Amino acid sequence: MSFRFEPIGIIHSCFKEKFGIPRQAGLVPAARASLELLPPYNRPEAVQGLEDFSHLWVLFIFHQCLRDGWTPTVRPPRLGGNRRVGVFASRSPSRPNPLGMSAVELLAIEQDREGLRLRLKGVDMMDGTPVLDIKPYLPYADALPLAKAGFAPEAPKPARRIRFSAAAREFLKGLDHAQGEALTELIVQVLEQDPRPAYLADDPRPRSFGMHLCEFNVRWSVDGNDALVTAVGPIDS
Amino acid sequence: MSFRFEPIGIIHSCFKEKFGIPRQAGLVPAARASLELLPPYNRPEAVQGLEDFSHLWVLFIFHQCLRDGWTPTVRPPRLGGNRRVGVFASRSPSRPNPLGMSAVELLAIEQDREGLRLRLKGVDMMDGTPVLDIKPYLPYADALPLAKAGFAPEAPKPARRIRFSAAAREFLKGLDHAQGEALTELIVQVLEQDPRPAYLADDPRPRSFGMHLCEFNVRWSVDGNDALVTAVGPIDS
Repeated sequence: MSFRFEPIGIIHSCFKEKFGIPRQAGLVPAARASLELLPPYNRPEAVQGLEDFSHLWVLFIFHQCLRDGWTPTVRPPRLGGNRRVGVFASRSPSRPNPLGMSAVELLAIEQDREGLRLRLKGVDMMDGTPVLDIKPYLPYADALPLAKAGFAPEAPKPARRIRFSAAAREFLKGLDHAQGEALTELIVQVLEQDPRPAYLADDPRPRSFGMHLCEFNVRWSVDGNDALVTAVGPIDS
Repeated sequence: MSFRFEPIGIIHSCFKEKFGIPRQAGLVPAARASLELLPPYNRPEAVQGLEDFSHLWVLFIFHQCLRDGWTPTVRPPRLGGNRRVGVFASRSPSRPNPLGMSAVELLAIEQDREGLRLRLKGVDMMDGTPVLDIKPYLPYADALPLAKAGFAPEAPKPARRIRFSAAAREFLKGLDHAQGEALTELIVQVLEQDPRPAYLADDPRPRSFGMHLCEFNVRWSVDGNDALVTAVGPIDS
């Protein structure tokens, strides 16, 4: 018995690689994305009334994990990467059916000759993610603020200080003002979440990291509890 | 581009037909179900740690809607069945990819020679529903109690009075005490939700209805705002 699904949309986001993607929706409010509806679903009637909802669910495929296969247990970053829990007790993207679900804020519905797009805020989805479904968020059924949540009772606390080198600041200032502000905010929020692999979280040695974020290359170094953005530049550089 | 998924589990619930199924999870707390994990996923390690979560998400297939196809707009019961909204602005089971998601309470994890089962509370899933994924409910990411929810801002109010005929009471008393109590509670909660098609909600004429619930046949009549359970009996009768 198996079921076949076709994407109804695709995500365009600043997250060009797995590294750096927030581990849940809502953790990085500055993370915006555009959900492009694909034909034949890109008809304004199909989203009629959605503008009256502040949030929606995106059901999607962890397409970079399709070939991972599954293991009965995984090591969530929240447990430092060394304690195992069952794959169904985790939100790991590597799971028997690599389906993801994210509650995100709906900023706008845009329609023009290029198509129909939903502008989203607080996403944790990679660029190119295939979307299987969109549902309105219903607080009376979906919001269970008092639910007990085992090893992940609350959002990870951003306990880090993020600084920028003179070179990084200079580059950001050279951008269009709004773009520079938005990129700075995004870098800060992404690094506050500490995207490093969990096994490095307690590593006392200084280390350097890099990631593609939007159209830019971001490099930073970590020393103890501080992160220093050493360089921001075009991806080609 | 398409993706193929195999079920990791199957739902055993009291809802043997579409009619009468609560329209969201949590609306009928008395609705219990068992989620049976299928091989090779029925290994205790795969759910290890899930017992520390009070609630979980079940991602499933609306298997009775697989052949429905999709229409760009639907008529939600909440709008009286006569106003149309986009299919992606609704939680209708008839949608391009008929995927459902329900936040349900986890009562227990049972393992014996017959397999591995999760006992669930507050379900809105039909008997035989194929399950694609189980995820722990994370309040910090999933609970947005202040989200604005268009045409469905709060749970539908159960405004009906449910009575039982002498014959129905007699039958329920004849059952094992706990079973009789549980079935009575389930019938009351299901009928409070008014499972009638939306176009009948304002129908002034008395009408009779019937449904299979667990192993029983339940018949009731509606007159104005009151529902009278006229008969409860074995399905064969």
